[in-house]
Amino acid sequence: MSPKITVELLRQLRQAMKNSKYITEPIQAYIIPSGDAHQSEYIAPCDCRREFICGFNGSAGTAIVTEQHAALWTDGRYFLQASQQMDNNWTLMKMGLKETPSQEDWLVSILPENSKVGVDPWIIAADQWKSMSKALSSAGHSLVAVQDNLIDTIWEDRPAPPSTKLITLGLKYTGLTWQDKVTALRGKMAERKISWFVVTALDEIAWLFNLRGSDIEYNPVFFAYAIIGISNIKLFVDSKRLLDPAVQEHLELDSPSKPELTIQCFPYESVYTELQAVCAALAPKEKMWICDKASCALTQVIPKSHRSAIPYTPLCLAKAVKNPTEIQAMKMAHIKDAVALCELFAWLEKEIPKGMVTEISVADKAEELRSQQRDFVGLSFPTISSVGPNGAIIHYRPLPETNRTLSLNEVYLIDSGAQYLDGTTDVTRTVHFGTPTDYEKECFTYVLKGHIAVSAAVFPNGTKGHLLDSFARAALWDSGLDYLHGTGHGVGCFLNVHEGPCGISYKTFADEPLEAGMIVSDEPGYYEDGSFGIRIENVVLVIPAKTKYNYRNRGSLTFEPLTLVPIQLKMINTDLLTQKERDWVNDYHKTCRETIGAELERQGRKAALDWLIRETQPIPN
Amino acid sequence: MSPKITVELLRQLRQAMKNSKYITEPIQAYIIPSGDAHQSEYIAPCDCRREFICGFNGSAGTAIVTEQHAALWTDGRYFLQASQQMDNNWTLMKMGLKETPSQEDWLVSILPENSKVGVDPWIIAADQWKSMSKALSSAGHSLVAVQDNLIDTIWEDRPAPPSTKLITLGLKYTGLTWQDKVTALRGKMAERKISWFVVTALDEIAWLFNLRGSDIEYNPVFFAYAIIGISNIKLFVDSKRLLDPAVQEHLELDSPSKPELTIQCFPYESVYTELQAVCAALAPKEKMWICDKASCALTQVIPKSHRSAIPYTPLCLAKAVKNPTEIQAMKMAHIKDAVALCELFAWLEKEIPKGMVTEISVADKAEELRSQQRDFVGLSFPTISSVGPNGAIIHYRPLPETNRTLSLNEVYLIDSGAQYLDGTTDVTRTVHFGTPTDYEKECFTYVLKGHIAVSAAVFPNGTKGHLLDSFARAALWDSGLDYLHGTGHGVGCFLNVHEGPCGISYKTFADEPLEAGMIVSDEPGYYEDGSFGIRIENVVLVIPAKTKYNYRNRGSLTFEPLTLVPIQLKMINTDLLTQKERDWVNDYHKTCRETIGAELERQGRKAALDWLIRETQPIPN
Repeated sequence: MSPKITVELLRQLRQAMKNSKYITEPIQAYIIPSGDAHQSEYIAPCDCRREFICGFNGSAGTAIVTEQHAALWTDGRYFLQASQQMDNNWTLMKMGLKETPSQEDWLVSILPENSKVGVDPWIIAADQWKSMSKALSSAGHSLVAVQDNLIDTIWEDRPAPPSTKLITLGLKYTGLTWQDKVTALRGKMAERKISWFVVTALDEIAWLFNLRGSDIEYNPVFFAYAIIGISNIKLFVDSKRLLDPAVQEHLELDSPSKPELTIQCFPYESVYTELQAVCAALAPKEKMWICDKASCALTQVIPKSHRSAIPYTPLCLAKAVKNPTEIQAMKMAHIKDAVALCELFAWLEKEIPKGMVTEISVADKAEELRSQQRDFVGLSFPTISSVGPNGAIIHYRPLPETNRTLSLNEVYLIDSGAQYLDGTTDVTRTVHFGTPTDYEKECFTYVLKGHIAVSAAVFPNGTKGHLLDSFARAALWDSGLDYLHGTGHGVGCFLNVHEGPCGISYKTFADEPLEAGMIVSDEPGYYEDGSFGIRIENVVLVIPAKTKYNYRNRGSLTFEPLTLVPIQLKMINTDLLTQKERDWVNDYHKTCRETIGAELERQGRKAALDWLIRETQPIPN
Repeated sequence: MSPKITVELLRQLRQAMKNSKYITEPIQAYIIPSGDAHQSEYIAPCDCRREFICGFNGSAGTAIVTEQHAALWTDGRYFLQASQQMDNNWTLMKMGLKETPSQEDWLVSILPENSKVGVDPWIIAADQWKSMSKALSSAGHSLVAVQDNLIDTIWEDRPAPPSTKLITLGLKYTGLTWQDKVTALRGKMAERKISWFVVTALDEIAWLFNLRGSDIEYNPVFFAYAIIGISNIKLFVDSKRLLDPAVQEHLELDSPSKPELTIQCFPYESVYTELQAVCAALAPKEKMWICDKASCALTQVIPKSHRSAIPYTPLCLAKAVKNPTEIQAMKMAHIKDAVALCELFAWLEKEIPKGMVTEISVADKAEELRSQQRDFVGLSFPTISSVGPNGAIIHYRPLPETNRTLSLNEVYLIDSGAQYLDGTTDVTRTVHFGTPTDYEKECFTYVLKGHIAVSAAVFPNGTKGHLLDSFARAALWDSGLDYLHGTGHGVGCFLNVHEGPCGISYKTFADEPLEAGMIVSDEPGYYEDGSFGIRIENVVLVIPAKTKYNYRNRGSLTFEPLTLVPIQLKMINTDLLTQKERDWVNDYHKTCRETIGAELERQGRKAALDWLIRETQPIPN
């Protein structure tokens, strides 16, 4: 991987920072967040501004360019990747390490007195604006909104914003009509005396209207806003997309069943002026919800006296708690996904000795096998297919220049997933096709112990995910090891593979209590820079747990794995497992064998079935 | 325990809420926080306003009185106690339960439109003022500062504020002179370009000046404020206290060594006007630190442009990380404390069968035995001495009307501690003098497993205590059990038994990373209302851990128990322990036997030594 050469781009950006065409007064620093106007994690090519300016293309990171410096903040998943993709004009700021300054502290330490720091108000979240602005002004500087995006001014061949075909989802997949969802939402609004709600997150809009798109690779969403009132529904979307008769019928555009369920459609770009109009007509005490992660630009349209900024929206929570139809659909998607992976591993065993299998070819093969499954739509994120040292790059994506060949001598890690009409998958397995070293096995076993500790955890109703994070690390910590990423994220149902408001992480922000029906990943890991990476990831469903006692009638929860792909026994040092952990592995493999075996049989995939049966032999006591 | 009758008091308070003598416009609600002007947890009798109005005398709780309602919020430690101490004019709001509204939500739900909510700005912390004010104003109400405390206006025989003799502490106990501490503090201020720091927490002032007092029972602090500048030290304290020649000499009041280490003394009450004067003389960019837990009244003296509100102060952190002299002193205090407890348990075994030992008499005996130890000053909190069902009242304090007799049939829990010149102790043991039931043993063993899981935990440098909290609960959770309090708190060195900024709790606020030298408690429990309470508490020191590997050279930490009192083997169901847990118990008991045995021998306490030796027999494998 060779770094992007950024000398000329930085020169142009620094000129723009002084150009009166874009700004009234020169700015001394410019912040380039990684999001789009919806604060999406994955973004369309037209929004990859941070990658454009610095070369780093991971999913999380913020670049800041000053007159003298250029720096990029990202987290532990991306330290190696970022250092390889950026040239030496850039300083990598490793978030989470004690010695790393925050963006605010760094700016304060290097800016001349009374500096102005610019940012595009559409791509910075309101809460980030607020804290950054506060920190800067308390040090005598100021944060200013630059209406023209300065990256766009120097980005000559910037792609056009996408506008893909919309897919309508029926009750069979969603369990609830969009009208049901709007009505339930209005119930929540009424409870809190809220008369309007500005929906800005793309997955919330897709979920609410039971629509999907493909504007952003891997995430089946489409660019839109919605403003929901107690008796209004305003949808802002490229009007061409609504010409499709299926969409017209789905949204009842011509013949709404009830007046309060009539959707008014507006062009995507008119959200700003329409929101101004709605705000202008508000009665004195009326309140409007907007997520504090919505763009600063849109948030500031709502007068403070009417604004109720919330850390996560009721749609975000409603979407996170899957209904029985969605749970059933997710289970089906995971069975199909496991079929594809069993087939893949059986194929790999046969092909690797021939010496022609590479990280890229495995990723392609995995996609091909998944695409053979019913209702396959696409991948849910770029496949991480990594051999040996590449495995230590936590969010590695194989490129021709980094592509390594799989062998019998190195650990192989594959983290992949797909979008099916019935659900979203995300699974990581770490395997060795020859003989792993004792150290590799030791580390793998600690990771497995962590994975099991979370998956088998029993905890009271109302527990937040961050309280489970240390369970995943205890075995690693005991030996002085750790991993620099969270343990799990929420997973959407044919939606974003990362979603809020729950998760399992040492970070505690935006962490709502786990409840039955939520779906999260369980993915501890261990990464030895320059040598190998290990991660074991299942998607798990939160379910009620049966316990011996029931303190204060609170009830307990635990997890049920939805991912049903064997965990390689060869990588386990079984001496390090407790009896309970062995039983967990054996039970898990029994379920894999029964559930996936039946489907492999049905699909007539004999080689994969043989592989599955061999890989799910119980660990002897 | 009979509840306090509050009909008349509430009538008077509600009159005061409309009395133009105190307020310009009537207020519809009045908030009575539990703190004093320094936001102390333990308070002097003159500050027990919340207890005065509602009867509940636990260490944490906030009362709110409206025209129609009176409600008291407290946490799980106090649900039972509060329900017993309050009459039916009061509604108990059980914090931490899902159905319990926050104070803000409750006020918003019951107040008439445009209400005014009053509070004494001296006894509400600035951060609480801010969030309460925001919540109320976003619902159309307002929070107003009532300068006359309305409780004081109806409290006829309110005690006078205390002004006790000051004790000076030499280097032998503190390891650092107050001049060293001021200089180190100024270093921290300079790093952050801070020119003034307003010290409001009583334990921070006591620690900084190496002085102690006894204004507040159990907490060796004295009423004072300090304002530290880069070249000024302003101390606000009752001037009579400075007449003592030992104090004069200690503070170098007559002959300061250096001009910048000269203490200017002011009357306690003049802090407000003196702070105004300091603020009036600030240069435009000068910044002043004040803790966001300081009183709203004092905080608002500092103009916003000069104010840097911090969640905890550098003194709080410096005080939390004990220096080698303090660690040695704390160890010595814990050895003496263990001697007293061994003697107590040996005495109990002999006396209980006679049927005359009560909760109160044990508490008295424990105090008597502690007072025989060198440098004993007093208790560090009211002894919790509880038999059977009283044990389920988490912060129970035996009173004549609740006093139960110890017997061979019930579980006995004693949570007690003392102040010695060399350190502060806090230890809980739960014991049975007859034969515990299987269920009692089962619960005790889960609690013990949790205690060990924390005490033996190995975790990376920089880990926050809240990440360890679930380790203490996992064994209980597995069986559907839990406890409704945090697992540990910071412990001062001959200072407050509860101190920040570190701790071990599911609550994550004000939780600074653990570092070597910090001292916290490890005290999981289980409480069965109406039956028994179990808690096992040691004070533990954070120390570096030796690990097999050392990921990214971060280093690891673990805990060393300072408390060395046997854990009753009779209460343990050893079948439920893992080998590692048995080894921990055996190692711990070996250390108790060696360290405390030697001191018992030196003090010639034969009966206690025999008891210790018997109680520290290893668990057989």
